[in-house]
Amino acid sequence: MILPQVDSPEDIRKLPIEQLPLLATELRQFIIDTLATHPGHLASSLGTVELTIALHYVFNTPDDKIIWDVGHQAYAHKVLTGRRDSFNTIRTYGGLSGFPRRSESPYDAFGTGHSSTSISAALGMATASTLQGNNGRQHIAVIGDGALTGGEAFEGLNNTGVSRANILIVLNDNGISIDKAVGGMSRYLTDITASPRYNQLKESVWSRLDSNRPASKKNGVRNMLQRLTFIAKTAALGAPNLFESLGIRYFGPIDGHDIGRLTAVLSKLKDIKGPKLLHIITKKGKGLPTAENDPITYHAPGLFNPSTGEQIKNSHSRQPLKYQDVFGLTLVELAKQNAAITGITPAMPTGCSLTYMMQQMPERAFDVGIAEQHAVTFAAGLAAQGMLPFCNIYSSFMQRAFDQVIHDVALQHLSVVLCLDRAGIVGEDGATHHGVFDLAALRPVPGLTICSPLDEHELRNMMYTAQLPDQGPVVIRYPRGYSVHVDWKSPFEKLEAGKGRELRQGTDAAIVALGHIGNAALIAAGTLEQQGVSVAVYDMRYLKPLDTDLLDTIASKGYRLVVTLEDGMEHGGLGSAVLEHYAATATQQRVTTLGIPDQFVPHGSPDTLYHQLGLDPQGIADTIINQLKNT
Amino acid sequence: MILPQVDSPEDIRKLPIEQLPLLATELRQFIIDTLATHPGHLASSLGTVELTIALHYVFNTPDDKIIWDVGHQAYAHKVLTGRRDSFNTIRTYGGLSGFPRRSESPYDAFGTGHSSTSISAALGMATASTLQGNNGRQHIAVIGDGALTGGEAFEGLNNTGVSRANILIVLNDNGISIDKAVGGMSRYLTDITASPRYNQLKESVWSRLDSNRPASKKNGVRNMLQRLTFIAKTAALGAPNLFESLGIRYFGPIDGHDIGRLTAVLSKLKDIKGPKLLHIITKKGKGLPTAENDPITYHAPGLFNPSTGEQIKNSHSRQPLKYQDVFGLTLVELAKQNAAITGITPAMPTGCSLTYMMQQMPERAFDVGIAEQHAVTFAAGLAAQGMLPFCNIYSSFMQRAFDQVIHDVALQHLSVVLCLDRAGIVGEDGATHHGVFDLAALRPVPGLTICSPLDEHELRNMMYTAQLPDQGPVVIRYPRGYSVHVDWKSPFEKLEAGKGRELRQGTDAAIVALGHIGNAALIAAGTLEQQGVSVAVYDMRYLKPLDTDLLDTIASKGYRLVVTLEDGMEHGGLGSAVLEHYAATATQQRVTTLGIPDQFVPHGSPDTLYHQLGLDPQGIADTIINQLKNT
Repeated sequence: MILPQVDSPEDIRKLPIEQLPLLATELRQFIIDTLATHPGHLASSLGTVELTIALHYVFNTPDDKIIWDVGHQAYAHKVLTGRRDSFNTIRTYGGLSGFPRRSESPYDAFGTGHSSTSISAALGMATASTLQGNNGRQHIAVIGDGALTGGEAFEGLNNTGVSRANILIVLNDNGISIDKAVGGMSRYLTDITASPRYNQLKESVWSRLDSNRPASKKNGVRNMLQRLTFIAKTAALGAPNLFESLGIRYFGPIDGHDIGRLTAVLSKLKDIKGPKLLHIITKKGKGLPTAENDPITYHAPGLFNPSTGEQIKNSHSRQPLKYQDVFGLTLVELAKQNAAITGITPAMPTGCSLTYMMQQMPERAFDVGIAEQHAVTFAAGLAAQGMLPFCNIYSSFMQRAFDQVIHDVALQHLSVVLCLDRAGIVGEDGATHHGVFDLAALRPVPGLTICSPLDEHELRNMMYTAQLPDQGPVVIRYPRGYSVHVDWKSPFEKLEAGKGRELRQGTDAAIVALGHIGNAALIAAGTLEQQGVSVAVYDMRYLKPLDTDLLDTIASKGYRLVVTLEDGMEHGGLGSAVLEHYAATATQQRVTTLGIPDQFVPHGSPDTLYHQLGLDPQGIADTIINQLKNT
Repeated sequence: MILPQVDSPEDIRKLPIEQLPLLATELRQFIIDTLATHPGHLASSLGTVELTIALHYVFNTPDDKIIWDVGHQAYAHKVLTGRRDSFNTIRTYGGLSGFPRRSESPYDAFGTGHSSTSISAALGMATASTLQGNNGRQHIAVIGDGALTGGEAFEGLNNTGVSRANILIVLNDNGISIDKAVGGMSRYLTDITASPRYNQLKESVWSRLDSNRPASKKNGVRNMLQRLTFIAKTAALGAPNLFESLGIRYFGPIDGHDIGRLTAVLSKLKDIKGPKLLHIITKKGKGLPTAENDPITYHAPGLFNPSTGEQIKNSHSRQPLKYQDVFGLTLVELAKQNAAITGITPAMPTGCSLTYMMQQMPERAFDVGIAEQHAVTFAAGLAAQGMLPFCNIYSSFMQRAFDQVIHDVALQHLSVVLCLDRAGIVGEDGATHHGVFDLAALRPVPGLTICSPLDEHELRNMMYTAQLPDQGPVVIRYPRGYSVHVDWKSPFEKLEAGKGRELRQGTDAAIVALGHIGNAALIAAGTLEQQGVSVAVYDMRYLKPLDTDLLDTIASKGYRLVVTLEDGMEHGGLGSAVLEHYAATATQQRVTTLGIPDQFVPHGSPDTLYHQLGLDPQGIADTIINQLKNT
């Protein structure tokens, strides 16, 4: 066994090169065995095993910088950089992050989580090295073909093309992001890779590059020869390709699982100055046949049998549906009745369950790739021509389209329904993925209706109401995971915008809650009743328009305490809205605001995190008891 | 004169084609004469006169849809679509918007203002037409080469390439955005245009396309011939170019001031189904020599002599500097002392005055093109390697990089200084450009320091303080326009983060202000004193960390009223922060929050708008008088 002896990339670089394939085999098995019982991002990580070894073998990490775009393909990197023994803690509370983190290791050069940032970050780091007079340091951005569809990646390419910085972009092309990759770029990469003529030419150019490599170490000569070879190569391949159009030298495609070829090519590229791109072809899920055959399911498969790959599923016979399924099935139901409805997802059809609509009415459901900005403006364009788009974006990814929500949707008061999935604490994906900024960021945007369902029946009614005529832009935000009832398919009912409701009566204090977290409030109120404290619970339903009548009624009831409760940042959201209303009406009402405190929330299970944040039933009850003591 | 007879595009379509050049001449002169005395975006609009006429001549507007990217080049469009007589109201309060507005005219198919949205919007509209069974409608996105560097434009191209929708992208290439265009794309477009071989081939292909055009109207035959011609053309030009790599047929480049050629080519393209791109070369400022020679100055030149083009400048001998100049000059001053400092702007070097640094230390100052997302992540990359980037972004454009501020800067606690220029009401550019969402959107982001200067001395000290060691991410937001003092160059002084100050004593009420608007508070307090009302004024300086000590002191003083004052949205910013603190400490203090109310603010002069919003000294004083009556 080699893997147990590898405690850092230094140890890899000491290995004879012929042992690297064996290391890859062991590493792949280690990842499979660990993730079988400690769920994580499986398929992406299996696809980059050879690349990871080759990069650390060839480059002088951590002085040379590797930036893993998105970062869920960096598990092999974590194992090889001193985190083998803690690898089984990945994505658990207090354990390793599922993404690179600067605070976790000096080998994690730049934190990631959201896609398409790596080229910009690498260019920044490479520019810093140039300014600091360090011309030898290498900066490598590893980016998937899916992440390449994000606009920021193009902005990065466009700027890299005119830079003279020392940057290598490794395009890890597996024809798939989390779902199937889409768009002209994806088709283009397939064309490049599949063209026999192109590949023949490429092979001949590559072999010439091999044989022409000068033994002399004189950089001048070598550079000149390389430049000539490069010109020959470019000419042989016809006009410059897309990347070369932008000023970035293109190399490849090569087999990303051929570790000998990878190390050889990377060694050569190391000596070529300036920006360059190496296109490698890999297989997502490589080494586990079930994952190779179904990389979408095996992106993050949960528990599975490490020998067969078979998923191990819980068998709850009568469990509530996930909010995601309620969204996806309800959208199909509504779309059958309303021909104007369309569905849009930026690259998350499986995650958000737009797949139901994509299967049943493919001409009306659009996966636009990792392109949140485009998704929102595209929706606005559809709405401007009388369609009724439901644009589903994870809450934290909506941050990418904040301007488009303001500028294209709200300002034009277009009837776009923005369904923000993964709102609140998402759990194991951690700080980059928690959907906690949406309420505070969107509340000041004029003309938006913003609501959040207590349960799946409200989600259905909010979706139903949003597609009625003249509703303007509507934001519906709901969490990841299971809803509340087993019988999810309630009849549709129109909700009155900006009207909340009383869920439970009480006399000592009132909880004013928004969204699914209201269920925790109900449990807390039940607990408190047993302790002799009578707590009312209100479901605001709408952050905007705010139900000021209900707030006035609440203030008139003489509660000693009103507690606002939301699964978003405490500053700026529902709590602030309630305080603003009471200030504007000069209402004297003791109010405590409960939400995510002013800190980034780490990864862990949602239950653990809500408990840590004091936002589980017990925490809510404790706050009320403590606050009532002080009134 | 033809122009006076053109009340709508219908009238253009009735003209004999040989009269179009005359119409262009008259239209160009009309725009020059009007803007000489009614300031607006001159150079861009002069560059698109022929294109605008040709588009309306060839296409059946408003049923066919034209989407003007950014939109400041759409003045000719406004004049030709029934707004000739009101054209002299452009950008004034109550007058025409400087950008297309759906609410202003049915010919304004989609509202713009920020760049790079047009392709996504056109694709949405074209997709709607397809779904609605309207296969004849044309959808045209007109996008400049500068706007093409924005990531959303690439996202739009990438999705357009796999669509079969009826969409024509007109690439208006003038080698310049507001400042000089940058990046690999810009260089690529220059290469395409300048290559003699390419142009010879292109010309021969184009002439074949002309002569081969079938007289028959049978679509099948014509389409087949066109397809063959297209294949021949592509083959003749070698491998597909960048746009064709993405699946979009490329035509051009052609002279965008040759109106005969434009109408001929557009007529042909009208019959070609699917996504296509026409590359036209124009001259920004065309027809006014001073503007042609200096399109950056003449982007929006203010008043000028319509005959000579000479700018008419106010001659204030001892006027305060603009905040922009204070930023630009101070950055150079600091950068001379601190070698880690770099400067970054996404395409606004002149507007934000990074030009000073670009001239004096070009290797450390970066114009990254219209690419706000890249700008922020690039800054984070620099900071990760020990540099100290000052990234200057207009407040409303920061909305494009909201996720990068959270995900790349704040979460990694990197010392990036985000200078948000154009914060508050910007004036004539209107709703798309007012910088009013930044405070509310950024306040909930953990770890940010957010401050705003009362005057240029504070701006200098905030910049000085931000570049001292270990300050973490700092946001400094300041308005467009003149600062306060004439002697701007105060000595640097370190500010204590999160500490405000008393500006003026008083006993009846207190104004708690953030930023430049505090000057209006001081004037209001002076006015009120004459009316026997004693008002204290506090300069919070920092929104975050919040000076809770100062707020406690203020609460202890027994003011009958505390008024919070900010030039950002009333909901979520300083007002909410003060209310949250008083709620958290169970402090009973009457508070009124003053800020931008929950509406989009139209265009007009800042003075007019602040007056309308009740945020000028008189409005502030009136609020205090009224509120005090009710206490």
